[in-house]
Amino acid sequence: MGKTRIGIVGYGNLGRGLELAAERNSDLEVVGVFTRRDPAAVKAKSPVYKMDDMKDFAGLIDVMVLCGGSATDLPKQTSEINKLFNTVDSYDNHGEIPAYFAGVDASAKASGKASIISVGWDPGLFSLNRVLANAVLPSGKDYTFWGEGVSQGHSDAIRRIDGVVDARQYTVPVEEALTSARSGEGREFTAREKHKRVCFVVAKEGADKVRIEKEIVTMPNYFEPYDTTVTFISLEELKEKHGGIPHGGFVIRTGETSEGVVQRFEFSLKLDSNPEFTSSVLAAYARACHRLAQEGKSGAFTVLDIPFSLISAKSPEELRKEML
Amino acid sequence: MGKTRIGIVGYGNLGRGLELAAERNSDLEVVGVFTRRDPAAVKAKSPVYKMDDMKDFAGLIDVMVLCGGSATDLPKQTSEINKLFNTVDSYDNHGEIPAYFAGVDASAKASGKASIISVGWDPGLFSLNRVLANAVLPSGKDYTFWGEGVSQGHSDAIRRIDGVVDARQYTVPVEEALTSARSGEGREFTAREKHKRVCFVVAKEGADKVRIEKEIVTMPNYFEPYDTTVTFISLEELKEKHGGIPHGGFVIRTGETSEGVVQRFEFSLKLDSNPEFTSSVLAAYARACHRLAQEGKSGAFTVLDIPFSLISAKSPEELRKEML
Repeated sequence: MGKTRIGIVGYGNLGRGLELAAERNSDLEVVGVFTRRDPAAVKAKSPVYKMDDMKDFAGLIDVMVLCGGSATDLPKQTSEINKLFNTVDSYDNHGEIPAYFAGVDASAKASGKASIISVGWDPGLFSLNRVLANAVLPSGKDYTFWGEGVSQGHSDAIRRIDGVVDARQYTVPVEEALTSARSGEGREFTAREKHKRVCFVVAKEGADKVRIEKEIVTMPNYFEPYDTTVTFISLEELKEKHGGIPHGGFVIRTGETSEGVVQRFEFSLKLDSNPEFTSSVLAAYARACHRLAQEGKSGAFTVLDIPFSLISAKSPEELRKEML
Repeated sequence: MGKTRIGIVGYGNLGRGLELAAERNSDLEVVGVFTRRDPAAVKAKSPVYKMDDMKDFAGLIDVMVLCGGSATDLPKQTSEINKLFNTVDSYDNHGEIPAYFAGVDASAKASGKASIISVGWDPGLFSLNRVLANAVLPSGKDYTFWGEGVSQGHSDAIRRIDGVVDARQYTVPVEEALTSARSGEGREFTAREKHKRVCFVVAKEGADKVRIEKEIVTMPNYFEPYDTTVTFISLEELKEKHGGIPHGGFVIRTGETSEGVVQRFEFSLKLDSNPEFTSSVLAAYARACHRLAQEGKSGAFTVLDIPFSLISAKSPEELRKEML
């Protein structure tokens, strides 16, 4: 296998993570970062180019890894960029995946490029495990728990409250629900029974903390359906103790293969850095995307369409000898 | 998708498990069981035929699921049977997989059939997770733990000791090693540090239990490298409390994505019945084998070559909508 030459589109946490991932995969090489900002203002380890200059790299980059957001970036970018390049992205708006897939697929088929969408851990590794568990245990029940980890969306929601300087929200699985899920008793859980929300909030000097707490715990959708705890701390403590972006979670399926014979399948991740891990998954699937393209495949793909032999740096012979 | 018509070759625990699995997968249908024994003597849920009559079923069976053993059955059978049929097997002699693959591949390519080898949980689901974890965390260390579960080979070894009526040996992961593996500290373990062996033994009336225990714990390879406990019990207690064939285990990989940023990947199974679960995995890959054949693919494959979309009864559209 030759090297896979990668372009990074967008340079936030994911883009930086891609550079780190490439350092640990000797067959991956970052050709450049493409940004909408002024390239001179972006401090990256790789050369930085203007988004518009991307077209000059046709033939020099095997896979563009799209590191933008799912809300506005990817729905616009992917079907443009895959006119010229194979792409991998981490589109994570679960409900919109079929529509997104259809658009990316049409564009990729027209250009003869390969695009792997929704790569990461959920969607991604968690999806793989849900499908595997359901295929081998068709009679059963599965559960996905998230956390303990920082939810960016919930942290942002707190920050928008008047009198809040900064905040960090952790999603935490409820231990009793985890235990029940593993037992195979097949219970259904409400949102409140499965996860709790733990918030660390920095309030402005003199702000009404009672009001802030009430606004948080009663916020519809975000906090009201959960048991939520609010702890006010100083900005220094927030920076010192809550500066990371940890996350993780569990996919559990229990099922019977015959009357009373219970089989349990469990997959879990415990991540010090959510974006660095997502970038590592993107890196492995960038390798797979390059190989798909080399096989002459085009169109949109998801992790469910890609055999693991394509994401590994090892050859099929090495995999059978060392890993099977 | 039409139904996948399955033949079961060999009717032991795995063959019985396949019948159970087919009951829970509405798209799988068992056409018959093929045995070397007198068919009249085999009580199966499906019609039972002589092994030699298999050739009459060409065109009536999509996939033969080979439920024989890895020591003598599969090395002889697979490359014969795949002259006429697509096959799936659970060949589990890790060290011999490359040679086995080569033989099965040559025969399958010659006949234009598809053969998926080494399907089950180890090799199988554990292999998949080892490859996935290594691909996304190239800098790291992985561990496989087995148990708590019954080792048939170790139980048999005890039964061969003079004065032993029956025995059951459980392989048990050592909790401290599991904790260390999860911590990311990257320790190496000896066999003794990773697993212990727990034996329940029924001795003949008047047999020398001290000698039996000593013969067990000093047995090279099987028990000597481990901390082994021996408990003598009655035949009634053995049958009552140790009649099942539970198993399971853990695949753990911890790795860094940047200096000091530790990411943990863990997969585990807890199985009430080892053979029934293995059969359930074989059933899912029988479906995949049928689809490979329908796509015109031939040759030998392993689980690492098969995308999960092929093992699921759901369509790619359903998978993207419901599972991704």
